[in-house]
Amino acid sequence: GIFSVQPGFQLAVSTDTLIEGRHFYADTDPEDLGHKALAVNLSDLSAVGARPRGCLLALSLPAVDIQWLEQFSAGFLALAQAADCLLIGGDTTRSVQGISMTVTVLGEVPIAQALLRNRALPEDDIWVTGALGGPFTALQMLAGRWPRDEQVLAQVLPRLQRPVPPYQWAPELIGHAHAAIDISDGLVQDLGHILQASQCGAELFFDRLPLHDALGQCSQTQRMEAALGGGDEFGLCFTAPQGSRAYVLDSARKAGVAVERVGVITRGDVLTVYGADGSPIDSVFEGFDHFS
Amino acid sequence: GIFSVQPGFQLAVSTDTLIEGRHFYADTDPEDLGHKALAVNLSDLSAVGARPRGCLLALSLPAVDIQWLEQFSAGFLALAQAADCLLIGGDTTRSVQGISMTVTVLGEVPIAQALLRNRALPEDDIWVTGALGGPFTALQMLAGRWPRDEQVLAQVLPRLQRPVPPYQWAPELIGHAHAAIDISDGLVQDLGHILQASQCGAELFFDRLPLHDALGQCSQTQRMEAALGGGDEFGLCFTAPQGSRAYVLDSARKAGVAVERVGVITRGDVLTVYGADGSPIDSVFEGFDHFS
Repeated sequence: GIFSVQPGFQLAVSTDTLIEGRHFYADTDPEDLGHKALAVNLSDLSAVGARPRGCLLALSLPAVDIQWLEQFSAGFLALAQAADCLLIGGDTTRSVQGISMTVTVLGEVPIAQALLRNRALPEDDIWVTGALGGPFTALQMLAGRWPRDEQVLAQVLPRLQRPVPPYQWAPELIGHAHAAIDISDGLVQDLGHILQASQCGAELFFDRLPLHDALGQCSQTQRMEAALGGGDEFGLCFTAPQGSRAYVLDSARKAGVAVERVGVITRGDVLTVYGADGSPIDSVFEGFDHFS
Repeated sequence: GIFSVQPGFQLAVSTDTLIEGRHFYADTDPEDLGHKALAVNLSDLSAVGARPRGCLLALSLPAVDIQWLEQFSAGFLALAQAADCLLIGGDTTRSVQGISMTVTVLGEVPIAQALLRNRALPEDDIWVTGALGGPFTALQMLAGRWPRDEQVLAQVLPRLQRPVPPYQWAPELIGHAHAAIDISDGLVQDLGHILQASQCGAELFFDRLPLHDALGQCSQTQRMEAALGGGDEFGLCFTAPQGSRAYVLDSARKAGVAVERVGVITRGDVLTVYGADGSPIDSVFEGFDHFS
């Protein structure tokens, strides 16, 4: 495909692969899968504040299944259209076993103004978009690691199957946010990437985290695990100076994006999570070693 | 990755997937494979006259094999460096079975001047770069469909394993060539795509085709099959007005690219191949139905 970039803009590019048996199950609804294959890539664009412009889809299938292809394409193209992200190239190949797909996205960002991970400053607010913990809860219940509660599962499943990154709003953070990342590995781990790159620490306040409604029925331990460690969110975590609070809240409201201010960047190299009672929670740091 | 496009240029993008068991064997030399994964994509850029600027590599591996990865990367990056095609993004995932890789390339082409398939005009010369038939001969011998001749195989194998598209020279065809395509499916079939898109016919002269040296030892039938039907060439077939002959020959010579003038575009919708004795060869049209 041939593709033009507006004067004054750079291109942000990203690529992500989803593999059957690793990233999704064989019986995943093809329309959901089409949506998700593009959504996880749009999330990468949002993380740098880029506006989606085009995408390429490389699809490997063990056999031609017209109905599956039509449904997959419907999910993929509906999101591509909603995001104004034109399909400008592709390749379809026959796989030996299982479905896999690689999507590459291209977005526009004003020259030298892309959001980066290494720009957080002490006293920055830490913000999170969307609700946390839904996809993790769905995965735990589907895998039988948490007791399956059909009511809860029905509420959280759409967050796993059809994530919607804030692709429309993220470009409005350019010039306001300092650092940003998309929450794909879990809030603590992804915020850790910002802290490591920015050589900062942080304080997170657990009772300010925007938990998914359905998590109200889970135990406190489960809620913490899901909100702090759960991946596959595809919302944004970003830092911005305190002077930007009014702008962030106002522009998010206009765009219909939920944002919460959940903590603050500090000097040093420690990430501390405070519980509702104001005391630090140690247990969540298992596996978090952002300075290792 | 973040990436700038020069003023006055558009972006050409393309994506291609290689799958173990379909496009290569498990025992393929990893350095060759790294080279080829990028080469087949550079070939797509050459076909539109775009200059390589950046690439993304999505790699799926059943297990981490450091030595394999190092060799693969060496082959990939050596070509990326030679072509001035920066690696600007990637994703490495664990596959359930077998290796697969999707490469996306980005190239620059002057605005509205990309070479297209549908611009061939009657009386255009038809040109071909490189030598023909090498990769096909290698594949036939490796698969046991042709008697294996170790001497011939040793000569043609590099053309299959490490194809070198004319990525440096192709941009110089902008403003001179009318239509272009890369020879991936075979000369007759790929020229057929140009004819179909341009609503033209063509005459090809078999004795002008630049056969790979090693094919001198093959039968006439084999030579014809290899040169006219053999894919995986990753050279270019392009058409240009007769007034461009001197420019094409001169600029190709300076760039060290072999070009041959092998035929002419005609009115109508027939592709005729003439043998050395001046009479048309019918048998090569099996399977060629570009207007179906």
